[in-house]
Amino acid sequence: MKGYNVAVVGATGAVGTKMIETLEARKFPVAQLRALASERSKGKALRVRGDLLAVEELKADSFKGIEIALFSAGAKISRKFAPLAVKAGAIVVDNSSAFRMEKDVPLIVPEVNRYALKDHRGIIANPNCSTIQMVLVLGPLHQRAKIKRVVVTTYQSVSGTGLLAMVELREQSLATLEDREIKKKVYPYEIAFNLLPHIGEFLSNGYTQEEMKMINETRKILGDEGINVTATTVRVPIFIGHSEAVNIELEEELTPKEAREILGEAPGVIVMDDPDRNLYPYPRMAAGKDEVFVGRIRKDSTVPHGLDLFIVADNLRKGAALNAIQIAEELIKE
Amino acid sequence: MKGYNVAVVGATGAVGTKMIETLEARKFPVAQLRALASERSKGKALRVRGDLLAVEELKADSFKGIEIALFSAGAKISRKFAPLAVKAGAIVVDNSSAFRMEKDVPLIVPEVNRYALKDHRGIIANPNCSTIQMVLVLGPLHQRAKIKRVVVTTYQSVSGTGLLAMVELREQSLATLEDREIKKKVYPYEIAFNLLPHIGEFLSNGYTQEEMKMINETRKILGDEGINVTATTVRVPIFIGHSEAVNIELEEELTPKEAREILGEAPGVIVMDDPDRNLYPYPRMAAGKDEVFVGRIRKDSTVPHGLDLFIVADNLRKGAALNAIQIAEELIKE
Repeated sequence: MKGYNVAVVGATGAVGTKMIETLEARKFPVAQLRALASERSKGKALRVRGDLLAVEELKADSFKGIEIALFSAGAKISRKFAPLAVKAGAIVVDNSSAFRMEKDVPLIVPEVNRYALKDHRGIIANPNCSTIQMVLVLGPLHQRAKIKRVVVTTYQSVSGTGLLAMVELREQSLATLEDREIKKKVYPYEIAFNLLPHIGEFLSNGYTQEEMKMINETRKILGDEGINVTATTVRVPIFIGHSEAVNIELEEELTPKEAREILGEAPGVIVMDDPDRNLYPYPRMAAGKDEVFVGRIRKDSTVPHGLDLFIVADNLRKGAALNAIQIAEELIKE
Repeated sequence: MKGYNVAVVGATGAVGTKMIETLEARKFPVAQLRALASERSKGKALRVRGDLLAVEELKADSFKGIEIALFSAGAKISRKFAPLAVKAGAIVVDNSSAFRMEKDVPLIVPEVNRYALKDHRGIIANPNCSTIQMVLVLGPLHQRAKIKRVVVTTYQSVSGTGLLAMVELREQSLATLEDREIKKKVYPYEIAFNLLPHIGEFLSNGYTQEEMKMINETRKILGDEGINVTATTVRVPIFIGHSEAVNIELEEELTPKEAREILGEAPGVIVMDDPDRNLYPYPRMAAGKDEVFVGRIRKDSTVPHGLDLFIVADNLRKGAALNAIQIAEELIKE
């Protein structure tokens, strides 16, 4: 099997390190692996397959000979360097929001819309973490009974912000429990034993960037501009694992039992829904797992064909690194 | 001013202690105060107005001479002892779910439906904590533009479960941070750095008791059985303060600006809604305050007249003790 030259941009971050782990875990055919990061990380080394891999500084000429470039270093870096990677001959899988809504950039969750991969200009976008886990569940339901409207509220862990946010949650939690002064660096208010209805910047319509990502990306991935989505996204004091309470209104009737059956056969989804045995998904259970978990599926009788459900996934895995590697796997199949 | 003989049942609990504090803070005209609790708490003493008040064991004859009995010791205790208190001549304000949905028991949030206080058989019910803070905001909006449907998801702190749950969150958090074994007593799974979509028991329709309380109590308090409510209630690793993401569909148009104006004049409500200055409500801010805070008010264009909002309050105060004392204040006005 041919091996590919792969670069990971943002290799020392929360998602970047998971990308490298996932390449290894899934035995992605890597010929050469290049770990790229900002100047700050230069000289660091990562452990890959038992060997040490030196972290190189990301520069304009970093992509010579690279065939697949996985980006997870924020939209600004992607906007600047992804076109350079493409020019150097690489296909980019970009985890940032930089190109997601551009027309000739496929926005892919392989299980849901791998068909959309075919037309691209060298950049494939990896959706927002909260969107990925939601559409993985909504996709099969939409196919069967057509989704008209979605009201989603999220419970997002701090690892979605990055490693520094995980350190902040840890330090603030200890400071609270030990009754010491709390220091704030990453978030505008305390995150320990608190929550903030604030992810991304606020826009003029009152929604946040994160909320608009969920709204716009869901439509693009499901390939249906007619789906109405409203979202409230909230940061909670959890290290890993995003949860979502999702209320959906369908065109056609779908019982909770039918929904469970459909989702039971959906790739990448595990139905965990037996309340009498306290079986429902929660972040501590989902952390470290590849699948998206869904439970609390019940009929919402306040609309003609309504369902309520609760979706939990490891935001660093299926929500980011795993989905990006799955996209790369699709690319090399072609 | 006449003083009243007041008993607090569940006086050593999370809400009971707040009730006694609140009586004092609001200068409720107390002639004699009796602190009642289970046998376990017998011999304990509470500090009230600088003095020590002995905790007495709750018994069938505990209510002799009592004029107002404030109950917060769970539905089972209320079902057994509230009728005895009434028989002894007291009016009961009950914080449990025991009598809330009974026809001749008013379910009161004074700012919203004090008119419903007039007909009772000696028992007034204090609504569920999550319901109180929601209807305080929904009430004035319903009056102006008629609410058709509500989709609410909650972020509920562990103090809603009680003092032992607060201890559990504290101990499990420390154990996690210090990498020690985690012990579970109160919740079926870890609550530290986790969340559980599970409050109250599961019912045959897939909803929990807590979710059905929000659905049924909201209708009863707003006096409109036509309001459709669906709810998902979730326990989060926060000590004090419940948050709610609320999506509402109105009969008539109401802009976010109009909603802010209406709520700005609503008693007990504080509008905290200026995203550009990072002004929005969150639990650490609301804890220890009497008011209910609302922000993130924005138009939801996915339905004809939709609004999204975010509501936060101290669940032990307006969500429980304060509302109960306010009911008692209304009673003695009569």
